[in-house]
Amino acid sequence: MKTIKDRQQYDSRNLTMLFDFYEMTMANGYFKQGMKDQIVVFDMFFRRIPDDGGFAITAGLQQVVEYIQNLHFSEEDLAYFESKGIFSPDFIDYLRHFEFHCDVWAIPEGTPVFPGEPLLRVRGPIIEAQFIETMILVSINHQSLIATKTNRIVRAAGPGKSVLEFGTRRAQGYDAANYGARAAYIAGVEASANNWSDIHFGVPASGTMAHSWIQSFETEYEAFKAYAESYPDNCNLLVDTYNTLKSGIPNAIKVSRNILEPLGKRLKGIRLDSGDIAYLSKKARKMLDDAGLQDCRIFASNSLDEFIIQSLNMQGAQVDVFGVGEKLITASSEAVFGGVYKLVASYSKEGQLIPRIKVSDTFEKITTPSFKELWRLYEKGDNHPLADVLTLPNEVIEDDVPYEIFDPLDPTKRKIVENFYARKLLIPIFEKGKLVYKLPTIEEIRNFCQNNVAELWEEVRRLDNPHHYYVDLSQKLWDLKTDMIKAARQTYS
Amino acid sequence: MKTIKDRQQYDSRNLTMLFDFYEMTMANGYFKQGMKDQIVVFDMFFRRIPDDGGFAITAGLQQVVEYIQNLHFSEEDLAYFESKGIFSPDFIDYLRHFEFHCDVWAIPEGTPVFPGEPLLRVRGPIIEAQFIETMILVSINHQSLIATKTNRIVRAAGPGKSVLEFGTRRAQGYDAANYGARAAYIAGVEASANNWSDIHFGVPASGTMAHSWIQSFETEYEAFKAYAESYPDNCNLLVDTYNTLKSGIPNAIKVSRNILEPLGKRLKGIRLDSGDIAYLSKKARKMLDDAGLQDCRIFASNSLDEFIIQSLNMQGAQVDVFGVGEKLITASSEAVFGGVYKLVASYSKEGQLIPRIKVSDTFEKITTPSFKELWRLYEKGDNHPLADVLTLPNEVIEDDVPYEIFDPLDPTKRKIVENFYARKLLIPIFEKGKLVYKLPTIEEIRNFCQNNVAELWEEVRRLDNPHHYYVDLSQKLWDLKTDMIKAARQTYS
Repeated sequence: MKTIKDRQQYDSRNLTMLFDFYEMTMANGYFKQGMKDQIVVFDMFFRRIPDDGGFAITAGLQQVVEYIQNLHFSEEDLAYFESKGIFSPDFIDYLRHFEFHCDVWAIPEGTPVFPGEPLLRVRGPIIEAQFIETMILVSINHQSLIATKTNRIVRAAGPGKSVLEFGTRRAQGYDAANYGARAAYIAGVEASANNWSDIHFGVPASGTMAHSWIQSFETEYEAFKAYAESYPDNCNLLVDTYNTLKSGIPNAIKVSRNILEPLGKRLKGIRLDSGDIAYLSKKARKMLDDAGLQDCRIFASNSLDEFIIQSLNMQGAQVDVFGVGEKLITASSEAVFGGVYKLVASYSKEGQLIPRIKVSDTFEKITTPSFKELWRLYEKGDNHPLADVLTLPNEVIEDDVPYEIFDPLDPTKRKIVENFYARKLLIPIFEKGKLVYKLPTIEEIRNFCQNNVAELWEEVRRLDNPHHYYVDLSQKLWDLKTDMIKAARQTYS
Repeated sequence: MKTIKDRQQYDSRNLTMLFDFYEMTMANGYFKQGMKDQIVVFDMFFRRIPDDGGFAITAGLQQVVEYIQNLHFSEEDLAYFESKGIFSPDFIDYLRHFEFHCDVWAIPEGTPVFPGEPLLRVRGPIIEAQFIETMILVSINHQSLIATKTNRIVRAAGPGKSVLEFGTRRAQGYDAANYGARAAYIAGVEASANNWSDIHFGVPASGTMAHSWIQSFETEYEAFKAYAESYPDNCNLLVDTYNTLKSGIPNAIKVSRNILEPLGKRLKGIRLDSGDIAYLSKKARKMLDDAGLQDCRIFASNSLDEFIIQSLNMQGAQVDVFGVGEKLITASSEAVFGGVYKLVASYSKEGQLIPRIKVSDTFEKITTPSFKELWRLYEKGDNHPLADVLTLPNEVIEDDVPYEIFDPLDPTKRKIVENFYARKLLIPIFEKGKLVYKLPTIEEIRNFCQNNVAELWEEVRRLDNPHHYYVDLSQKLWDLKTDMIKAARQTYS
């Protein structure tokens, strides 16, 4: 029998065949044109932070790694290609013996990230680097979306309060529930209702009862009593089925007196799932305290999000644990993390780097060309990140050497940074197709995320109108980009 | 080697362990209390139509069926329960020999549905009927959300125009992409970019090239030429990489002239992915027509949704095919389909039906008690649905016998319906745990959906302020519900 540990690898599906069909028409085309081994560079990046937040949290890298390690085409897959009648037999044979040779770099999961930064970078033969686009995007877009949203909710709850992820039933499919719970845990929830993510990812599962439990007994008291007898060590009662203040809480207190206390046990919590949470939680706290149940936690759930939680806290609601469902697991206020995967460079046969650009009428939509390095500059002493800087590959930002940064959307806004240290954010994941990265555990990622968020300026962390954190270009990269834009525009003016 | 046909069964994952943890604490509790075989009835229903639309489309039943047929606990699953330390050995042994005995009824996939209607109904031992809650909800909520949104987009595109599903990369995980494409196809898209849903569900896959294809060649013309040579039978060119009107379309026409026409082939389409689609598509149409390419279709994509498509059509945009991505695959305007699963009845040991109710301060949130039948009344002649009616199980609505319906939110609004026929919407899926339903093919579901939507009054189908379609309660059911509400309220007044 396999142990639970062996099952942490998520599932037995081979996701190789999950791609946009055009990835394969292009791959076949590159193959036919003799171009398949042209070395290119793709950046995966996003353009804006959901909910106008101050930062996003990157997540989903582990699933990209597992996907790449598992890349292979079965005979059934090849039969599918044959059935389409547009793929050459040589190409299908190439797929039969497919091997992955790319270099991949990424920003570790749980890092606060900003628009325009490569979250992941791929360099290698175009036929391979192109093909993995869809899975990279869907993996990182989804989990970054949920991690970013969750961290807002956890920040709104505030220190000393907990958030639980309750959204499985409203998630956009099974993976949305499962990987969503993973991303939510990375970003700070205490546990999830989702059992699968407990088994497969080690996200603690929690849960007690639905209203149907209460309804299945003749009386609420009997339902509570039966539950307390079954789970004396973790008794948490849903108190709003009939009438929270007149029935639910009095019955919970009675069960604590009659069943739990004689066993030397404590009532762990009560849950409010409807009504005016601010009012009811204050009343509930008073009733519980008066009954000597100061340690009984009050859980609240019911269409919560970061703004309702913020409002409840401002009203002095006595909620210890917020259960958040659909608005977290779908990030419903802005349900899309718009990551893209763009060609930014190629190499000549002689190995010369050739920057590539995609021009647009909107400046923000123009890609930043070239293979690039991404640096984060930290203030010495308190370690607050000051700004991020993209440079050409051969540039180095030396610690403590005064460095001029400027806003790429308004290059007249300039500032000299001093007394800092600089770190590269992109780290090697695959080298020539071989995994060179030790995947951290989910607890390590979660702690890393918490520490990284804590280092950000408070003004970047706030929910409303956060301070704009800059992602600057080095002067050399800026000059390259503007020269290339001018050249492209001249051609079609 | 397995054929493609064999692979239509989606994946090898056993999803038995995907549930909210409380399903299992309750199951163990029912087991301990000797209540596990109490027969109960659960309704799955939703309360409001996303986007304030006139109707929703139900979808996801096939996945519920596959899940139920595959329900079983492996030894690893049982080891997981043991590791929690709160589940009794007897209960774990019960799970080892788990069998499903419930009756399940559902409204077929692709049917237009309305708030308050049971989309699915389960009757059976409480321990089984409770346990399947999470998977029923996540399956039907997700696919109904996407089917409902997609049908809005397809209606906005209008007759003679096509919609393609392009959202995989922005979906909320892999299943959201795959099952989302399935739901989108049921609701009317012509094809999806998603290859997986082609293989596993038979949703046609389509796709041609990304901007990176164009950027990988020295010139746009060379990129188009290479593509035309590779795919002369299905040549569809992305024309906005450099300059749509000055470069992209002229190059596409040149490739048609120089490469395709000498082979006796036609340029199938051009795709606009940025800029002012209304303006560019009209210019493009003129340029293509002047070049004798009247049969070349114009595709447009770029953050489209039903309102932008409606606006493009109103402006006379010359778009034949709309490619819709993130706003369809996440239903981003309202990313949640709020289906719930509520206990509505139980049976006494003598087999007597006992209606159950969950009261709330908000009338719309009060459940409708009892095992119920759901009828759709159709106008004779043109088959337009007139209204839906929920009745007690022993009531029959006879064709052509004048029937009084009334608005359950305002019972003074009454109307006598005549010249109609009535059909039950819920059909048997499982009887005592045995599948009795022949799953339709995806093409059958898609056609069924199209026909059902076409039968609705035009006023119900419109996007803005649609006519409110009534789901009425029979007088007897109404009396039962109001009596039970009064009784519940008296207890706590």
